[in-house]
Amino acid sequence: MIDRLIERIEELQNPTVVGLDPKLPMIPENLKEEAFETYGQTPKAVAAMFYQFNKAIIDQVADIVPAVKPQIAMYESYGPDGVKVFADTVAYAKQKGLIVIGDVKRSDIGSTSAAYATAHLGAVEIGSQTYFPFNEDFATVNPYLGTDSIDPYFETMKRYDRGLFVLVKTSNPGSGELQDQVFEKTGLTLYETVGALVSKWGEDFRGKYGYSDIGAVVGATHPEQGTRLRKQLPHVFFLVPGYGAQGGTAQGLKGCFDKDGRGAIVNSSRGIIAAWQNKYKDRFKPEEFALAARQAALDMKQDLTSVL
Amino acid sequence: MIDRLIERIEELQNPTVVGLDPKLPMIPENLKEEAFETYGQTPKAVAAMFYQFNKAIIDQVADIVPAVKPQIAMYESYGPDGVKVFADTVAYAKQKGLIVIGDVKRSDIGSTSAAYATAHLGAVEIGSQTYFPFNEDFATVNPYLGTDSIDPYFETMKRYDRGLFVLVKTSNPGSGELQDQVFEKTGLTLYETVGALVSKWGEDFRGKYGYSDIGAVVGATHPEQGTRLRKQLPHVFFLVPGYGAQGGTAQGLKGCFDKDGRGAIVNSSRGIIAAWQNKYKDRFKPEEFALAARQAALDMKQDLTSVL
Repeated sequence: MIDRLIERIEELQNPTVVGLDPKLPMIPENLKEEAFETYGQTPKAVAAMFYQFNKAIIDQVADIVPAVKPQIAMYESYGPDGVKVFADTVAYAKQKGLIVIGDVKRSDIGSTSAAYATAHLGAVEIGSQTYFPFNEDFATVNPYLGTDSIDPYFETMKRYDRGLFVLVKTSNPGSGELQDQVFEKTGLTLYETVGALVSKWGEDFRGKYGYSDIGAVVGATHPEQGTRLRKQLPHVFFLVPGYGAQGGTAQGLKGCFDKDGRGAIVNSSRGIIAAWQNKYKDRFKPEEFALAARQAALDMKQDLTSVL
Repeated sequence: MIDRLIERIEELQNPTVVGLDPKLPMIPENLKEEAFETYGQTPKAVAAMFYQFNKAIIDQVADIVPAVKPQIAMYESYGPDGVKVFADTVAYAKQKGLIVIGDVKRSDIGSTSAAYATAHLGAVEIGSQTYFPFNEDFATVNPYLGTDSIDPYFETMKRYDRGLFVLVKTSNPGSGELQDQVFEKTGLTLYETVGALVSKWGEDFRGKYGYSDIGAVVGATHPEQGTRLRKQLPHVFFLVPGYGAQGGTAQGLKGCFDKDGRGAIVNSSRGIIAAWQNKYKDRFKPEEFALAARQAALDMKQDLTSVL
């Protein structure tokens, strides 16, 4: 799966992933009205408008970005109807040729992690039928419980050719509180320790470009740490959140890439999907939100490729 | 919310929570057949049988246990239909007077954590309507991202009188890999560091028994660490998984309770809900799975109270 992601990045010359994290205030009035008319003031209405919003953006970016990353929290906050639209969004994006990174940050003890693996990357057998519950290509996971909480994903990953991105160094301002503390025994920080585990877990999952299907989340808001991790983890591909709205710059995240310009994909959510009400408020009408997203995605591509 | 949990534990003289973690092989044939006949071999059928299974168990345990803990992974692995039954199960359990601990282990950066808080403990406004997406009383959360990933829950907790259980020391065999490592600067392990944070976060959330609405997950499979944490964290209530099927014993988890026999609630999932096919295979028929669960819950109560 990592090979497919790398190849698609190279075909499009664009190491960008668009975060599909809709919120109600981002939805243009025309979509809102239509959904409220059909479904009333219900979660179904919000789900319907999120889906229309996502579809329009996917249609506009599918030929310029390799991947999208829906953040499931935004959908979960509208209950089961919201979660259904998360699944529908994954399906639509894949139909349009996009690689889908499910930003779900799941984590649990072994047998329960296996259920999450099935949910997000695998399939269940129901009688004689096989059913793919959410069907993402990659899922993000949290390492706090250790190796035996992550290895239940491996079988599912191999069987269905999927990938993981493990939280290593997150983009939030307070990520250092635990992640940057140094362990006595090894002299490594918590995040470096997790990074080393991610590298080890990935040994059986390396593809033809030297990167493994088990990548790491490394926030764009910590340039020096990103640069150091890139050197320490030559086989670990990075998913880099925090560009744009959270303050990460192209110059700052240059160090997350290797000498061939590979090794990372950078996420932007609000900066792209809400461009119609921010950066491009004056250039596009609200109904043209998807065109504004396309333009913002092109800007980001240019910004990133200018430093690589 | 923690006061309500403590009071309900004392009314019933039972510090037990029943884990509602259904899996397809646990469902008795009669429920399976009925659901497959109605819905075919579909996720909807599995969702329907999970709901019937949970309802029957809730009906049988609501007068003997204070709380249930549905594990969302089991529901997510059947996609949106499964997630709907997670929500339906929460609603039914609350209707029967049970306190519901949503075992969701969510975790993300601030703005996204706020969306999870809304999803699991709060409400969304849709036009003039207010809607509670999952409506749990407590949710479990993962601390890897630090304080600014947890404090977005606080406002929602205050507004709706809810609680959290933060992963501190988990019950899986490999939990020590990261959690037991000692930090150079403080001489504390990662899990003790998180424990101290949980205590600090809870200062504004203390109830009349001295415990706060922000509790800790402390696995029954690590008795010494549980005992030590109980002393270090006198205001932090413990949710204790790992009893029974995972190997934790009543004697071993005695140390998780304070001198008044308060301070912890112990979870059992498989040991109770699958008792009809294990411990009580010969005593109850498959159709009597809920009676077997009741008996197993009574056994657990007796086992726990014998050491307290």
